[in-house]
Amino acid sequence: MPENQIVIIGAGNVATNLAFALKKHLTDNIHIHSRTEKSAKQLAEKLHCPHSFKIENIPEEADLYIISIRDDAIRKMSESKVLKEKIDNNLVVHTAGSMPANILKPLSENFGVFYPLQTFSKNKILDFKNIPICIEASSGFNFGKLLKYASQISNDVRNINSEQRKYIHLAAVFANNFTNRMTGIAEEILKEQNIDFDILLPLLQETFDKIKKENPNKIQTGPAVRNDTKVLEIHLNLLENKPDLQKIYSFVSKNISEKAH
Amino acid sequence: MPENQIVIIGAGNVATNLAFALKKHLTDNIHIHSRTEKSAKQLAEKLHCPHSFKIENIPEEADLYIISIRDDAIRKMSESKVLKEKIDNNLVVHTAGSMPANILKPLSENFGVFYPLQTFSKNKILDFKNIPICIEASSGFNFGKLLKYASQISNDVRNINSEQRKYIHLAAVFANNFTNRMTGIAEEILKEQNIDFDILLPLLQETFDKIKKENPNKIQTGPAVRNDTKVLEIHLNLLENKPDLQKIYSFVSKNISEKAH
Repeated sequence: MPENQIVIIGAGNVATNLAFALKKHLTDNIHIHSRTEKSAKQLAEKLHCPHSFKIENIPEEADLYIISIRDDAIRKMSESKVLKEKIDNNLVVHTAGSMPANILKPLSENFGVFYPLQTFSKNKILDFKNIPICIEASSGFNFGKLLKYASQISNDVRNINSEQRKYIHLAAVFANNFTNRMTGIAEEILKEQNIDFDILLPLLQETFDKIKKENPNKIQTGPAVRNDTKVLEIHLNLLENKPDLQKIYSFVSKNISEKAH
Repeated sequence: MPENQIVIIGAGNVATNLAFALKKHLTDNIHIHSRTEKSAKQLAEKLHCPHSFKIENIPEEADLYIISIRDDAIRKMSESKVLKEKIDNNLVVHTAGSMPANILKPLSENFGVFYPLQTFSKNKILDFKNIPICIEASSGFNFGKLLKYASQISNDVRNINSEQRKYIHLAAVFANNFTNRMTGIAEEILKEQNIDFDILLPLLQETFDKIKKENPNKIQTGPAVRNDTKVLEIHLNLLENKPDLQKIYSFVSKNISEKAH
């Protein structure tokens, strides 16, 4: 077994970013596996490392197997007899927020989770130094291994169990996916009026600067928090041909108002 | 009439920030009026300027009257006969996003809007240099006046009519108030699990960095955009005792998913 060989199963946003971080700080001995030859090759070429797209070509007895695929594909992968044989009771982890660690138990007695809390894109490789990595493992020995790996790429490694991690992932959906969509809705509203999105950038900057320093619930502003029914009514009228946005507007406003009063 | 006297009616978040900017870049001759003596005095003392809390003590014939109060209080103020006499057909503007300019017509033939697109707090005085100021006026002459004032405090002055401004305000509610609340919900979810909010800061930073550079609708990530029904189901279960958050989660997710597919 070559020392510190890491097999990454997956070639998506998380897998790509993680592979670059591991290569930079930990080992050149990486193998990329993905469902399609194209995606496996694409990432492997960037990393100058071998790749495979058939499970039977995954290397045996690597030091660490990282499964970084869609959350709902992990279960199926965990039932692969071929993969189980390859792993041969070595350490296998996944990178998913909402899946329990023991979903990997069918693959190996030595399993865990390596969950970097960040939003990744394939075409923007991030520095992991400040990215929180939530780790969990089936034993103290495996935990120590993951801690060693994680600490080499990030200064913020946290011991988080499967139950907590689900809530962290849920919180991240609100903080990232939903804030992004709220801004996307703003962009659509402006576009229809031929107003450039850049008019909102100073507002977005200040919104974020404030959140960094204070609990967002303490700095809530706007018509909903001050119960400005006149404005709420005007805004709901502007959205009358967009029932879905109207619903989002009224539910979020109601929630802001109830939180405040 | 002293040259360039500006009367600010209101002492809230917008009025406070605007008063500081006007004093810094335009004139020392500012008068603060507010409904309560306490709030008027508080702001006037910071600015070293006179104040009033009874409409009959507002100065006559100032160069500019800025009404910066709750949107739903503007209409009542615009019907004040006493204020009308004080203004004596000089220029009066409001700072509200969703109110038309001509709501001020009963006060003066010379009216307009001076709407800074930003989220303000009394205890954090912002530099206006990059804050977009949306102006509108009842005549070319009045527009010229407002343009002159606005250009002295900001490099981004825009000619925006009342209809457009309503949509800008609506977009700002999504981009600021709702993104802030989404982050607030994230904070609450973590707090219940005794997890520190700071775990989300790198994610928030990256979310914002991406939005600055790309259309948020093009960079949407998360379970909803990839139709990861397994995760959506897990998250809805975690929120089963919070029906309001559950509704927000499912409506926003549905909206993200429909936008993408």
